[in-house]
Amino acid sequence: MKIEVPKHRQLLASGNQNRRDFLDGEVVLIGAGPGDPELLTVRAHRLIQQAECVIYDRLVSDEIMALVSTDAERIYVGKKCADHAVPQEQINELIVEKARSGQKVARIKGGDPFIFGRGGEEVQELLQAGIPCRVVPGITAASGCTTYAGIPLTHRDFVHGCTFITGHLKNDKLDLPWQALAREDHTLVVYMGIKTVPVLARELLQNGLPESTPIGLISNGTTVDHRDYRTTLGELVEFVKVHQIQPPTLIVVGKVVNALQDDIVEGDGESKISSSSWEQRRAI
Amino acid sequence: MKIEVPKHRQLLASGNQNRRDFLDGEVVLIGAGPGDPELLTVRAHRLIQQAECVIYDRLVSDEIMALVSTDAERIYVGKKCADHAVPQEQINELIVEKARSGQKVARIKGGDPFIFGRGGEEVQELLQAGIPCRVVPGITAASGCTTYAGIPLTHRDFVHGCTFITGHLKNDKLDLPWQALAREDHTLVVYMGIKTVPVLARELLQNGLPESTPIGLISNGTTVDHRDYRTTLGELVEFVKVHQIQPPTLIVVGKVVNALQDDIVEGDGESKISSSSWEQRRAI
Repeated sequence: MKIEVPKHRQLLASGNQNRRDFLDGEVVLIGAGPGDPELLTVRAHRLIQQAECVIYDRLVSDEIMALVSTDAERIYVGKKCADHAVPQEQINELIVEKARSGQKVARIKGGDPFIFGRGGEEVQELLQAGIPCRVVPGITAASGCTTYAGIPLTHRDFVHGCTFITGHLKNDKLDLPWQALAREDHTLVVYMGIKTVPVLARELLQNGLPESTPIGLISNGTTVDHRDYRTTLGELVEFVKVHQIQPPTLIVVGKVVNALQDDIVEGDGESKISSSSWEQRRAI
Repeated sequence: MKIEVPKHRQLLASGNQNRRDFLDGEVVLIGAGPGDPELLTVRAHRLIQQAECVIYDRLVSDEIMALVSTDAERIYVGKKCADHAVPQEQINELIVEKARSGQKVARIKGGDPFIFGRGGEEVQELLQAGIPCRVVPGITAASGCTTYAGIPLTHRDFVHGCTFITGHLKNDKLDLPWQALAREDHTLVVYMGIKTVPVLARELLQNGLPESTPIGLISNGTTVDHRDYRTTLGELVEFVKVHQIQPPTLIVVGKVVNALQDDIVEGDGESKISSSSWEQRRAI
């Protein structure tokens, strides 16, 4: 069977085409970053204000939505954990419809559209519908939230790299290669994982991470409600329960969590002195 | 032995302190993103213009340096691969000295300061010297460069996450947990790896990745000289040689490389039709 090769790849801006102006009937997927409006990129900041129709998710902060023109149409399609406010297929249809009407359509997403943002799926739909589109990268939560929490993600005295996964259940399971993920020489960042913390903690412990492994929890990272916490893998499940930690919360697993910490500040403000000094930690 | 706990952690801005104005005598580590000046965050864009002294690396693009005030002092401390233009210790001393003189010091780094940017080490030095400091996250290359190349890093039809490592040699070795890294259900991004491509390719193949594994190469990503290429793991070493690909080049390993591709465009502009259609790929 001969496979027909679609001609629409060029509809997705690549390389320097990403610098072009907002076209009529174009869809720009915009990464809004983790929440602080000053973490928008200069391009995102500019295009959000030019947009004639804004289709946005739950994780786009109010401070960022305040930048949208008062003339622009605003459509909320936010999802909450298991119950999708608007099914993805309907979102796709809506975006296509608005673009076909000739509007400048900004599809604004929290974080980065291509890092757990389903941006790839939306771009595929747009290309199939023959709609010109572009993606503006955003500061992803794993970077912005950890920076505000004082966690140097890849500090080379501790790790050789970092891994991002999502704790979102798929068919009620968290089916991940735990053995490859449970590594002391690597930083693990879990997006959307606070509801599945019992599975996460159990699997990482069973696959060899020690109970003392430092854990960072960052709730509403970089927003005005930013809160960050430190605990350990062994105490994680209890900690989340006691402190009633809710989504959106990013989970960071590994030694870098305490790389710049002298003492561990818990959610209630109580300080615990850590057992090793900073200079000693550097020598690990 | 009693361990003395340093009192200086509070010198590093955390949470909402990151929103404060530039202080006299403060050092702000600024992530400049991968090159396109419109990928600066709004905060980076603002603080770069306020800085009185700018200490910058090789990967900070000319377009970004053009934003620096003409009155500001500019100090280049760029490194090239193995030969460090200025040793890290001297950079640290310089930053401390400039801050102590009361200047607003911007330490500008390509990408993000905490993702392979040695920001953690510089912050430690600043805290030990008692200097107030802050980190402004930037779009990291793995996000910005892949977006401009049309690669959706974590597309859930193909992978469950992504891993970032550096291909930089340490003591002439690339000592990485290859078995954990060689996974078909995961995207691997290698920073600064173009010089060590023979080791990378050999290790990934020996640890089970097929020769057909898609590879994306992104040179000077997001800058005016942006160029991206597609090849396969089996052909990678030869491809890099033939096309004389030089640093800075980001390497992306995995199925997402071709997720939005209908055909594969090589460096010389020649098109090769890929063997599977898009819809087929989605079903994987």
